[in-house]
Amino acid sequence: MDAPITEPTILLTGRWDRDERDDWHRALAARLPEARWVLDAPATPDEAGRIDIAIVANPAPAVLRGLPKLRLVQSLWAGVEKLLADDSVPADLPIARMVDPAMNAAMAETALWAVLMLHRGFHRYARAQQEGRWAPHPQRRADEVRVAVLGLGQMGRTAALRLKAQGYDVTGWAAQPRTSGVDPDGLAKVTGPDALWPLLARSEVVVNLLPLTPATRGLIDARFLAALPRGAALVNLARGAHVVEAELLAALASGQIGHAVLDVYTTEPLPAGHAFWTHPAVTMLPHAAAMTDLRSAADVAVANVRAALTGGTVRHRVDRRRGY
Amino acid sequence: MDAPITEPTILLTGRWDRDERDDWHRALAARLPEARWVLDAPATPDEAGRIDIAIVANPAPAVLRGLPKLRLVQSLWAGVEKLLADDSVPADLPIARMVDPAMNAAMAETALWAVLMLHRGFHRYARAQQEGRWAPHPQRRADEVRVAVLGLGQMGRTAALRLKAQGYDVTGWAAQPRTSGVDPDGLAKVTGPDALWPLLARSEVVVNLLPLTPATRGLIDARFLAALPRGAALVNLARGAHVVEAELLAALASGQIGHAVLDVYTTEPLPAGHAFWTHPAVTMLPHAAAMTDLRSAADVAVANVRAALTGGTVRHRVDRRRGY
Repeated sequence: MDAPITEPTILLTGRWDRDERDDWHRALAARLPEARWVLDAPATPDEAGRIDIAIVANPAPAVLRGLPKLRLVQSLWAGVEKLLADDSVPADLPIARMVDPAMNAAMAETALWAVLMLHRGFHRYARAQQEGRWAPHPQRRADEVRVAVLGLGQMGRTAALRLKAQGYDVTGWAAQPRTSGVDPDGLAKVTGPDALWPLLARSEVVVNLLPLTPATRGLIDARFLAALPRGAALVNLARGAHVVEAELLAALASGQIGHAVLDVYTTEPLPAGHAFWTHPAVTMLPHAAAMTDLRSAADVAVANVRAALTGGTVRHRVDRRRGY
Repeated sequence: MDAPITEPTILLTGRWDRDERDDWHRALAARLPEARWVLDAPATPDEAGRIDIAIVANPAPAVLRGLPKLRLVQSLWAGVEKLLADDSVPADLPIARMVDPAMNAAMAETALWAVLMLHRGFHRYARAQQEGRWAPHPQRRADEVRVAVLGLGQMGRTAALRLKAQGYDVTGWAAQPRTSGVDPDGLAKVTGPDALWPLLARSEVVVNLLPLTPATRGLIDARFLAALPRGAALVNLARGAHVVEAELLAALASGQIGHAVLDVYTTEPLPAGHAFWTHPAVTMLPHAAAMTDLRSAADVAVANVRAALTGGTVRHRVDRRRGY
């Protein structure tokens, strides 16, 4: 165990605008008054040599190289796939993901709003309004709607449990083979690659909240979409690279997929002229399904930083083999 | 108490199309195999003389006149204001409203969807998509959003509790002066006319689920809307006549009301050319926030019919003095 550090030097760095960086700096500095702060990158080798902790938001490549005292990289974002793809980050360096309760709640809100919209056809009413049509359609009960939630991390679980609390017939899926069955909190789940296909066959709404790993990249392709019942809906709130976009467009064109709610895209911002912008069966969000809440995330980051400084347990450590 | 009736004659009547009537007839007849059915209206005075029970859906005026044995009018709809306004309905005839648990759930779903949309600005993202703009906006926590739910009947309570379960800062209001405070289920409520105005002053979203009575008709007028914080949102899921539509349009034009989600209108279907159809700050539903669920509503209606036939307690009796 490393010796406790009482006057840490902390690097705060990311690809963000100055206002955003300054907001985080203020929030973190208020919670860590004893720290000295290095913003963006160390100015001198001497300064680099003093850095104990890095707090990062999708940092620039190589900015974490050559920091001999560095003992923790705390991400302010939940997704760390870019950090893990950066070869300049020392392989034995502990990295912690952000698990922000306010962000989990925001993600669950978006999932719930999307499923309510799809279930009750509120998007069809929006179109009817645009077209000047008064067209009520039949109503189904929530317990008649089968929803699959892919990914049972903190975000997936929070979303799945809130959907279940609204009466939906929810089943969760985790990519790693684990125990299937019903969790202590009443959530039905299946796990591992083989369990995915029968789950898709019975699900009319799929909510993707998987981490992006080599095993899940491109998972939502033509085969995946064809496994769903005809007219099913896709809600992708995780990463654009989970979806093979051309194959989703083909499934939308054929009617195999009835509607897609997309928050994330292969290229962000989504380029002008992309078919999603004007597609009548696509509801777009601009990577806004869940933002980190500065207040609660600063609390979470600082608790982890204090743990690293005092030799305590750092939470939400990334498992590099698993990829998240 | 009237004598039990073992072979009842039941009038099923409403202003609906034949398919809808036949669906209800099938569902009710399956649950009351001993009944004889008169559809739409009695054909002869003799038939009129045999009718014990009327099950109605917004029935035609005068259809309930001259039925000497009639002992209960069971509405299939929750709102009975048209029935109460029909002078031909004998004043001492028991009338029961429909209280359908599936309909309560559907109404709560619509309320939740609308509040999630307003809170998270998903309607702004829809507009941004139409305009080809990638424009994420800041995110607030649910507990920072103050929601007033007007009406604490079964629908209002169900909606308020589901909103509260999502973390919203919810206060309910009942028009009748009763005890204010916190209900056993944790719902904060205020009651009576005087309590409305301070509640409006602190509420950025108002969800209307009041019954339509002489006291609530036209309640949502210029004065009401001016009492809200600037930019507040209105969600009207109850009756069109609660809202003075011209005054709502004025409040939308001035920005006093930021957005309105409307399910009900003074005239339905909303006439072509009405300003709501194309208003950028109005989300329209075609009186579809909550439909009666034929299965559960048939169960509820038949339970009440059996109570009336056997001298048991009829539930959800209308109080004509109160107006619902």
